[in-house]
Amino acid sequence: MSVPEIEAIRKFVFERILNQDTRTKSVNLFGAIDSQPAIIIAEKTAFPTDSDILESFSKETHLPALSLIEHNDIYHWFLASLESGELPRCANAKLTLIYPATETHVRKYSAQSLRMVTETAAIYKEFVLPYINTKRENGRLNWVYNILEKKKESESIIIEDTDDREGFMLLPDLKWDRKTMNSLYTMALVRRRDVTSIRDLKKKDAPWLRRLQKNILQGLCSKYPDLEEDQIKLYVHYHPSYYHFHIHAVAVSHDGGSGQAAGKALLLQTVISQLESLGGDQEAGLADVDFTFFLGEESELWQNVFSNMKKGGKTA
Amino acid sequence: MSVPEIEAIRKFVFERILNQDTRTKSVNLFGAIDSQPAIIIAEKTAFPTDSDILESFSKETHLPALSLIEHNDIYHWFLASLESGELPRCANAKLTLIYPATETHVRKYSAQSLRMVTETAAIYKEFVLPYINTKRENGRLNWVYNILEKKKESESIIIEDTDDREGFMLLPDLKWDRKTMNSLYTMALVRRRDVTSIRDLKKKDAPWLRRLQKNILQGLCSKYPDLEEDQIKLYVHYHPSYYHFHIHAVAVSHDGGSGQAAGKALLLQTVISQLESLGGDQEAGLADVDFTFFLGEESELWQNVFSNMKKGGKTA
Repeated sequence: MSVPEIEAIRKFVFERILNQDTRTKSVNLFGAIDSQPAIIIAEKTAFPTDSDILESFSKETHLPALSLIEHNDIYHWFLASLESGELPRCANAKLTLIYPATETHVRKYSAQSLRMVTETAAIYKEFVLPYINTKRENGRLNWVYNILEKKKESESIIIEDTDDREGFMLLPDLKWDRKTMNSLYTMALVRRRDVTSIRDLKKKDAPWLRRLQKNILQGLCSKYPDLEEDQIKLYVHYHPSYYHFHIHAVAVSHDGGSGQAAGKALLLQTVISQLESLGGDQEAGLADVDFTFFLGEESELWQNVFSNMKKGGKTA
Repeated sequence: MSVPEIEAIRKFVFERILNQDTRTKSVNLFGAIDSQPAIIIAEKTAFPTDSDILESFSKETHLPALSLIEHNDIYHWFLASLESGELPRCANAKLTLIYPATETHVRKYSAQSLRMVTETAAIYKEFVLPYINTKRENGRLNWVYNILEKKKESESIIIEDTDDREGFMLLPDLKWDRKTMNSLYTMALVRRRDVTSIRDLKKKDAPWLRRLQKNILQGLCSKYPDLEEDQIKLYVHYHPSYYHFHIHAVAVSHDGGSGQAAGKALLLQTVISQLESLGGDQEAGLADVDFTFFLGEESELWQNVFSNMKKGGKTA
């Protein structure tokens, strides 16, 4: 039984890659069939979630080929193939085994429902600020200060400005291989210790932020001559994962998923623009503005502050 | 040769799925090995881009099993397997063949370099506003007006408010199957025709936007009782794909990729908050603010406006 479409695709002569996405596991190929231009868009399929397949997930019936790449403590990495075949060349999947796993691991790798919340100025002052203060107590930021004081990671510094008031230190993020410019991922830690998040920024800080922006962009481009300033995206998180002001400097082409989504990330330029267009004098600041963002239901902020407010109860 | 890690993972007894992501083709499984808790994180591998594999991409040596699912005009969809096997059960990849392909298809499926640009108030007025006006001329928005006048798609309306000044129409996006709440994707078109983008919003519009927000959220939740208001994310694009003001209303859990990224999407709540905190009287508006966003190098805005400014030349 001959299917003409299958006969056609079998004749595809590859010319070049148009695009590839290692996050979604897809690749777009350009070529020709009988001398006419043709495009193939190939995308790996998602894992089936039928219970019979999942029940035999790591068994030889389902994954005949399995090869250990690396292990470290409770973490084990494998390449796997859905058919018997030579690994790693024919691997269809990467597996990570965490064993024995703790409750923390289970939470970390579980689907989290997200909720949108609006943090008004009043909620910030009454409930969120005290939470942030506990997150800064008892040496929790020592690891940041160790970096700023060059007790740690000083060999990784990409750019440094040692001015106590205006200075910053730019470091590669763990996610970056430090080579591929398309996936550039760095982080600027400011030397000032009085800005815990964007909430502490005031109108008078706008010129400082503009200089910071300029210095990060120019510094990165003089360090990496293949890079141009408009290929770098600068953003901050609200809420951040730690409360010492820092800026993410990332290749615009880097797909950052929810870490770059509206409702979690704010472009540095948007923050500056909002500060500059704010009513009031130079002391007016972002502590008085409403911020809306999403939170995981497992997060402390949701569990201790916003879920209680939703229930109409008292917050912790 | 026995590898203890492989012996261990072979003994994995599946209990439940912790998380799955069909976009990145990964699944997190919880289970036990020798009665101790264990997690397997499985992720499909990206396509190899070695030239010898790409040169034989659709050949039987590389994809022994290939099955046509559907075809429509120049589009053909297949399931494929990297080993001979029974399709679709054992499919490893989905293929789309576009044949014959035009130059437009090639552009659409090619990697686009992105650039960050800052559109100041002066650039907006001199170069961008005339561009937007050409995009509204010659009936280009007729398809929107047809919807608002119920000449088209009226059977799809989810919520409607027919007030000429305050009203809107909420419709499902093509991306949504209209059933799965986790991937809810809808769009509110306002009835007013004088707001082309956020640039036209003024301080005096903030109360209207707040009512719009409330009506969209309440409307969606009364239509879909399983949904709660804080599970819906409202955002607008700047620049939008068409210049009639519209709001995306999407499940917070929906991974929207770059369409939800900072630098493309702005939460409606952030726009309202920025309007409310703006200096000046009720006529002050977002036409006077700097906006920073990313643009594809293939976009008209990049090619006609911003790339010329970068070169220091005159804009078109």
